[in-house]
Amino acid sequence: MDLQAVVDDIVRDLQPRLGEGKVADYIPELARVDPKQFGLAITTVDGTTYTAGDADTSFSIQSISKVFMLTLALGKAGESVWKRVGREPSGSSFNSIVQLEHEHGIPRNPFINAGAIVITDMVLAGHKPREAIGEFLRFMRFIADDDSVTIDEKVARSEQETGFRNFALANFMRGFGNLQHPVEHTLGVYFHQCALAMSCVQLSHAGLYLANRGTNPLTGFSVVSPKRARRINALMLTCGHYDGSGDFAYHVGLPGKSGVGGGILAIAPGKASIAVWSPGLNKVGNSALGSVALEMLATRTGWSVFGT
Amino acid sequence: MDLQAVVDDIVRDLQPRLGEGKVADYIPELARVDPKQFGLAITTVDGTTYTAGDADTSFSIQSISKVFMLTLALGKAGESVWKRVGREPSGSSFNSIVQLEHEHGIPRNPFINAGAIVITDMVLAGHKPREAIGEFLRFMRFIADDDSVTIDEKVARSEQETGFRNFALANFMRGFGNLQHPVEHTLGVYFHQCALAMSCVQLSHAGLYLANRGTNPLTGFSVVSPKRARRINALMLTCGHYDGSGDFAYHVGLPGKSGVGGGILAIAPGKASIAVWSPGLNKVGNSALGSVALEMLATRTGWSVFGT
Amino acid sequence: MDLQAVVDDIVRDLQPRLGEGKVADYIPELARVDPKQFGLAITTVDGTTYTAGDADTSFSIQSISKVFMLTLALGKAGESVWKRVGREPSGSSFNSIVQLEHEHGIPRNPFINAGAIVITDMVLAGHKPREAIGEFLRFMRFIADDDSVTIDEKVARSEQETGFRNFALANFMRGFGNLQHPVEHTLGVYFHQCALAMSCVQLSHAGLYLANRGTNPLTGFSVVSPKRARRINALMLTCGHYDGSGDFAYHVGLPGKSGVGGGILAIAPGKASIAVWSPGLNKVGNSALGSVALEMLATRTGWSVFGT
Amino acid sequence: MDLQAVVDDIVRDLQPRLGEGKVADYIPELARVDPKQFGLAITTVDGTTYTAGDADTSFSIQSISKVFMLTLALGKAGESVWKRVGREPSGSSFNSIVQLEHEHGIPRNPFINAGAIVITDMVLAGHKPREAIGEFLRFMRFIADDDSVTIDEKVARSEQETGFRNFALANFMRGFGNLQHPVEHTLGVYFHQCALAMSCVQLSHAGLYLANRGTNPLTGFSVVSPKRARRINALMLTCGHYDGSGDFAYHVGLPGKSGVGGGILAIAPGKASIAVWSPGLNKVGNSALGSVALEMLATRTGWSVFGT
Repeated sequence: MDLQAVVDDIVRDLQPRLGEGKVADYIPELARVDPKQFGLAITTVDGTTYTAGDADTSFSIQSISKVFMLTLALGKAGESVWKRVGREPSGSSFNSIVQLEHEHGIPRNPFINAGAIVITDMVLAGHKPREAIGEFLRFMRFIADDDSVTIDEKVARSEQETGFRNFALANFMRGFGNLQHPVEHTLGVYFHQCALAMSCVQLSHAGLYLANRGTNPLTGFSVVSPKRARRINALMLTCGHYDGSGDFAYHVGLPGKSGVGGGILAIAPGKASIAVWSPGLNKVGNSALGSVALEMLATRTGWSVFGT
Repeated sequence: MDLQAVVDDIVRDLQPRLGEGKVADYIPELARVDPKQFGLAITTVDGTTYTAGDADTSFSIQSISKVFMLTLALGKAGESVWKRVGREPSGSSFNSIVQLEHEHGIPRNPFINAGAIVITDMVLAGHKPREAIGEFLRFMRFIADDDSVTIDEKVARSEQETGFRNFALANFMRGFGNLQHPVEHTLGVYFHQCALAMSCVQLSHAGLYLANRGTNPLTGFSVVSPKRARRINALMLTCGHYDGSGDFAYHVGLPGKSGVGGGILAIAPGKASIAVWSPGLNKVGNSALGSVALEMLATRTGWSVFGT
Repeated sequence: MDLQAVVDDIVRDLQPRLGEGKVADYIPELARVDPKQFGLAITTVDGTTYTAGDADTSFSIQSISKVFMLTLALGKAGESVWKRVGREPSGSSFNSIVQLEHEHGIPRNPFINAGAIVITDMVLAGHKPREAIGEFLRFMRFIADDDSVTIDEKVARSEQETGFRNFALANFMRGFGNLQHPVEHTLGVYFHQCALAMSCVQLSHAGLYLANRGTNPLTGFSVVSPKRARRINALMLTCGHYDGSGDFAYHVGLPGKSGVGGGILAIAPGKASIAVWSPGLNKVGNSALGSVALEMLATRTGWSVFGT
Repeated sequence: MDLQAVVDDIVRDLQPRLGEGKVADYIPELARVDPKQFGLAITTVDGTTYTAGDADTSFSIQSISKVFMLTLALGKAGESVWKRVGREPSGSSFNSIVQLEHEHGIPRNPFINAGAIVITDMVLAGHKPREAIGEFLRFMRFIADDDSVTIDEKVARSEQETGFRNFALANFMRGFGNLQHPVEHTLGVYFHQCALAMSCVQLSHAGLYLANRGTNPLTGFSVVSPKRARRINALMLTCGHYDGSGDFAYHVGLPGKSGVGGGILAIAPGKASIAVWSPGLNKVGNSALGSVALEMLATRTGWSVFGT
């Protein structure tokens, strides 16, 4: 299979549809992005990267960072993570608070906002916010094997100033005793990890350990055990796209995690790590063209985990 | 890999735990089953079947039939099925009615009771209940390649007499216009398809088309297209275990569908169809030892769809 | 105060607005009513009746009958009634099922459909449906002091054929063990008591015991104790208008019960029983002009229970 | 009727039950109160005050202040208040956030926490928090005709430090645009108005305008119009006791507002303002003995608004 031809075809086929969907506007900084951009990068487990379109342009990875924060938290707290957050699809939108009231402050999974805030609280673990942010940034540079990865302070500040819903979620969980640090500290870290800026190429490198039994083939370093890599993939598949997770599994058939910045990370276990980016979002908040591109890719490659 | 050794090991290892969990008691007929039974059957895509324990004992497949009814409905109505039922995990229990009120009578997915009732209504499609039941039974015998598969009338009657919640769900959806036949007709078929009695061996044969690109290798007959087989597998993975679907994906990593009779059908795409049965259920209503057995099997075989 | 002048003024003032609101269309029989009708009848505790408009025209009292069924059930079961139904406003629409799932089949109050179905089940109490319907009809004739009160069989049948939501509620509660008779029996009685046809004059007579310490001054017969009369009035005020109860208390300030037929019964304790009727309904399902008329009446008479 | 004898009897009859219920412990400062206290004060519309027990002991009026804040907000914004808060019973607990998500940040009524926070935001109306607190304190001294009424700073601070749920509610509503000031400002005022310390005597004086057509007979000053007094009473009756409002209306039959400090203010329109206090709370969070005392009082006096 000529992967370069596949990615070129996809970018060419989607050219007429550039600009589809609606750019996220609830964070002022994100609303300014040019919607007619599209990037795609595939890095296979042998370390080769195939790119097309704006694959080297940095964008705000937003919720995709939840995968990496979970990886960090599992490294620190192991399976005890699951005492404070569930592993089930939520059946509701990314920022719903209803479920938290019904289930006593325990978020359904680590990939909705409430869950990621709890995960952030675990990563914080007694450190100063600045230190936790630094640790996360170092981790991301390590797994992407790229020291140019940075946090966009403007985006972080923009989220801080408008993130009332996240303040509500955090305070609500604090009221149930499921946050251990002051809300401002936990959210300070949370808003920064969301604000990571990466390109498709960098992101496809960063996710490679999930496709390769927990080890990054670019560096040879083990990030997690094979079992943990499988489990993170399982969570991405069942919970990675909020209330559109079932649909993504149905159409694409790969573990994936989307962000409102328009990026999606998808994993083809044993084969490749895929990053796609296009700012316009569909109704459930996932990149419109990104989703289409991944469905095309899955069809062309036969990489669906559900059969060829 | 010596699969026979694997299944033998699993049955031997679980011997001391026989009787764990709680037999379903809400249907009187099911409550009478001896809880200390355990069966396992694996049929690989080359047509070989490996068995251990009570693999030839018939049990009530209950909700596992929802997979086959969906297959039938997709055959009749194609993708228009999704106008009347969703494809997302529900985030609630198998018989919840709350979601139906919030979402105007459209069930979240075909594998919760409400969704399966709508699917049954599609299969009924203007026929008499008796005809639809007959069609379903013929289909099951065809895909199991075994004419001895039958419906347990006692179980069907038992469900009919005590299934108030299902009558509530059906009437509720009828009120929203999402059932097209009299409630008694649709539920008559529904209770019968739930009451199918099969052994692990039969069930592993019946599910084989999902592991083998839509075609049953035992008979050579195509049941669905490869694409549809993938999609049904995706639905099983995200929605197959009610509010324990995320957990099953995390621990086992295979598309699966459980029933309150204690059976679970799991699919290893490209590799095998697996049926396990043990009547005791865990807290979320899935076979306790069956879930454990499948986790052991996935670990031993490396068949998880999320990586080796 | 010249009450006849008051009622004449109200009817005259509302003349230009006749036809406002929307006639209930979910029961076919009700949808056929001429919307430009309006009747008002006040019977004071000294037994005088003041009327204006279509005060002698029969209409379907619908949910207003819930007050009388509750009276009957309290007579049979006393305060033990409250083991199977609550006394709190529901905060949701008249036919919501969500609350029932969250609160294990116990309806919030006797004036939402679910609650009235449970109350009907208590009135049924081992009798045949036909007998219970007969008992209710005799009771209504007794308290209205008028043997011409009847049940409109066409309306009863119309509800029976289209009342899927009520079948859902009843089956749901039966599943929780909160109905003691077959669903068809309980609902058979329920649909008939809803279908009572009365005029404003008859209805104002029937409600008079609630305004007069439990005793009907027209006949001298005691219907309930003074304490029970107060308590039924309290329930009407907090729960009598579904999710518009707070609004009705705010604007009118009298215990009241509305029906989708466009009737409202209101009680001025110690002073009068008031019946108003106009078929057009407002957004929360209460008679649009009926509500306005009662607000005008309360203002003119100073009868609000909340002060002059 | 000898009211002094009535209040003496009630205090004597309840003597053996002192200490019943459970003192609120979620605010540390409140948890320290001696539970064996009980006070009762009735001030009739002719200005006479009848007292018994600890009627002169100050306690934290907590949510009872919501009645007075609403009075202030109506004075400033008139009926436009109802654009930002509803008038219906909530059907859920005092600090539930579920309803807010379902109804887009508009609280159900001004007597649940979320509603009172919005009302506070209206009273704040562009002023500095300190000024708004001062205005509220002056208003309370004015209507109680007593300059010794104060705010307990310790309680205010205690709530500020532990009120995570209120921070969640406020941020949530801010996210919907239903708060116009910084969350810290609005909640700063909110926590202070809750922390008002008053005795039963003072509280019965402060509420007197609601019993006397809007005018305080002690001072002769008009606080609100007769119509507005009726309407506030209506809201107290339907919404004044959270999810126990229906029960309170059923048993007591008077408009009332409770606080977790163990106080209850009840209004007998045209007759008297009643304040009762006993720290132990019942299951729904209202003073256990206070509720009993008011039921005894209503029975003895025949003051129920629902009939004698």
